[in-house]
Amino acid sequence: MTDLNLKALNEYVRATTPLIHCITNYVTVNDCANALLAIGASPIMSDEPQDVSDITSICGGLVLNIGTLNLKTIEGMFVAGTIAGSLGHPIVLDPVGAGASGLRTQTASKILDEMNVTVIKANMSEAKALAGASAKTRGVDVNPDDVVTEDNLDESVEFVKELAKQTGTIAAITGAIDIVSDGEKAYIIRNGSPMLGLITGAGCILSCVVGAYVVANPEDRLEAVVAALVHEGAAGEVAASRMSPEDGNGTFHIYFLDALTTMDGDTLTKMAKVSVA
Amino acid sequence: MTDLNLKALNEYVRATTPLIHCITNYVTVNDCANALLAIGASPIMSDEPQDVSDITSICGGLVLNIGTLNLKTIEGMFVAGTIAGSLGHPIVLDPVGAGASGLRTQTASKILDEMNVTVIKANMSEAKALAGASAKTRGVDVNPDDVVTEDNLDESVEFVKELAKQTGTIAAITGAIDIVSDGEKAYIIRNGSPMLGLITGAGCILSCVVGAYVVANPEDRLEAVVAALVHEGAAGEVAASRMSPEDGNGTFHIYFLDALTTMDGDTLTKMAKVSVA
Amino acid sequence: MTDLNLKALNEYVRATTPLIHCITNYVTVNDCANALLAIGASPIMSDEPQDVSDITSICGGLVLNIGTLNLKTIEGMFVAGTIAGSLGHPIVLDPVGAGASGLRTQTASKILDEMNVTVIKANMSEAKALAGASAKTRGVDVNPDDVVTEDNLDESVEFVKELAKQTGTIAAITGAIDIVSDGEKAYIIRNGSPMLGLITGAGCILSCVVGAYVVANPEDRLEAVVAALVHEGAAGEVAASRMSPEDGNGTFHIYFLDALTTMDGDTLTKMAKVSVA
Repeated sequence: MTDLNLKALNEYVRATTPLIHCITNYVTVNDCANALLAIGASPIMSDEPQDVSDITSICGGLVLNIGTLNLKTIEGMFVAGTIAGSLGHPIVLDPVGAGASGLRTQTASKILDEMNVTVIKANMSEAKALAGASAKTRGVDVNPDDVVTEDNLDESVEFVKELAKQTGTIAAITGAIDIVSDGEKAYIIRNGSPMLGLITGAGCILSCVVGAYVVANPEDRLEAVVAALVHEGAAGEVAASRMSPEDGNGTFHIYFLDALTTMDGDTLTKMAKVSVA
Repeated sequence: MTDLNLKALNEYVRATTPLIHCITNYVTVNDCANALLAIGASPIMSDEPQDVSDITSICGGLVLNIGTLNLKTIEGMFVAGTIAGSLGHPIVLDPVGAGASGLRTQTASKILDEMNVTVIKANMSEAKALAGASAKTRGVDVNPDDVVTEDNLDESVEFVKELAKQTGTIAAITGAIDIVSDGEKAYIIRNGSPMLGLITGAGCILSCVVGAYVVANPEDRLEAVVAALVHEGAAGEVAASRMSPEDGNGTFHIYFLDALTTMDGDTLTKMAKVSVA
Repeated sequence: MTDLNLKALNEYVRATTPLIHCITNYVTVNDCANALLAIGASPIMSDEPQDVSDITSICGGLVLNIGTLNLKTIEGMFVAGTIAGSLGHPIVLDPVGAGASGLRTQTASKILDEMNVTVIKANMSEAKALAGASAKTRGVDVNPDDVVTEDNLDESVEFVKELAKQTGTIAAITGAIDIVSDGEKAYIIRNGSPMLGLITGAGCILSCVVGAYVVANPEDRLEAVVAALVHEGAAGEVAASRMSPEDGNGTFHIYFLDALTTMDGDTLTKMAKVSVA
């Protein structure tokens, strides 16, 4: 894996403190802000259409998350996306619940059509909804039929490659097994913990972490996304290892933010479970 | 208490993973989502009028919380409530601050009038405001004059029974002593901890827990509400028992979510302090 | 420091449970509510223009935070501010990101012009933006050029005094070194921990704590603001002292809320690092 310098990709985040503009849902927004601070980046939240242009202009990248979209913040997303695009800022799309409602599917599709999206971070059901496949998203969680397994891994990789090619993005499709592709290369990441599914926000946090990594590593965006996924997954493993029997999702949530904070480049490199597809 | 199988009521939640649509306030929404995950249910938050129909259709129940209501989300509540009602989904109303503002009292009353509300979860001041009694709600907390005590317990039980009858709902009026009635039977629950009053969100979380229990136990809704209140109250007791002198409401908050997670049917049954009124 | 009775200023908060109306951002609103409960006050959040009049009328003070402002909540702020002003309630302004966007700078300036603001709580970049100086705010964090240091302390104190005089407020400008002035007297506070910069919300929490202290201590508002800053800073120190190497910003966040809860008047007095400028 000579072309994947996880240590450097991680350290550039802390060295450059990328400023990330997030238009995200109000459920997990506090976690998104704390996660960005934990990894050495800096968050700004702003969704008012009359505020977003100024805010996105002073940032390095934009994260769009449709988890609790409303018509006003959708308007804010498009104003911000236009400015971010014209400034060459990376844009990360987290199409939360695409496939679960018409408005979510349409909004995510319109963002892909009209903005210069750099990374799509989605679960497989959301990804299939975007690809026009007949996914039935179970709310904000992946549909059991869509889960990536060792058995369907080859076809899943092909699907992710194709999605990346079609959309001109880096597609990061996450689950127990993550697949990341820019349409040419594809990486498989096996870091993580089942506990990440027991808290809300692991996916939203990941989109922000991805945003910070791609802003900090403009020359190696595909690898930056891989490093972000390893950072999140390895932090989940560290958090799970600290749990005692009386702990539940409250304590896991806190340990996860702790592990995002303490994860350095060497630990990241040591814990990484990455392979080229 | 042969008709109150708390163990089964609890286990059906984890066995069926009820999907709960929450239109709730932005103060405690993260706790609501994590609490639902902790008890084995699954949350979706959506309040945009153009999004809620699709979302509520794929869910099993709807929780309406007016803690930070605005005109747009009120519109979303009525769109969702109509669909949920037509699909026979349970609807839980948490009339946060009814009695503290005209808009809150009117909105809660209109929801009761126009929707098929299954459960009202309120403190006694909010309940009195809904009943048209002259309650003066102290913000979002119960007015000291309205607190249920051993001294006024009989008349309080009568009031709750009457409220349930009048509104055609299960009324769950909570405080140090909780009273639950469907207009015929009434239960008294004495679980809980004073620490639950030192964090924001205990009431909002409870409404979501109630939602999950009634969706998972459609044949025994009254008993499901009782079990939900025991689950929350017993979790508060477990959390308080873990506190050390240097801990405050930060740690209690986390231990409470932990205890919601670890509470199983046997522990629930053992800790329950329930009597028939 | 005979005129600064930190113990009494602290204890009046717990003794009177001031009810604080917060119109604040959705990123840190949960922390604001829990922090107010932690120090013995009581929070209510409400931003809908049709709801805020009733709510602010039953409260003792109003905190306005523009961290995720939108046109609707700005309208709510002005409705609430008018009522709060007519009732003589203290108003605290936290101009989050003033200088980072036109809308933020204009909104904060308009609040100062049209409302009877009691306290401005800001970082130095935001303060300079309000003063019309050419500050360039780095998002929601202070610009490194604006940081108060031992070297520029005298001129910083003069600036804060002048800001207080010009605006007719108590100006509380916070950072590693805090300066508080009513235009005549000025205090310098050196409590705090660098860890407070690693979580989101320390500033938003502080504005709420300031609100509770000035409502509880109407005769000594300048000193009340000083006590609030000591409470927050000392709590940060206590929280930092509990950290172990595997802890990050998750655990610090919790310990900070714990220390806000456990901080009593005696500890506050003992830990205070306050001097008259």
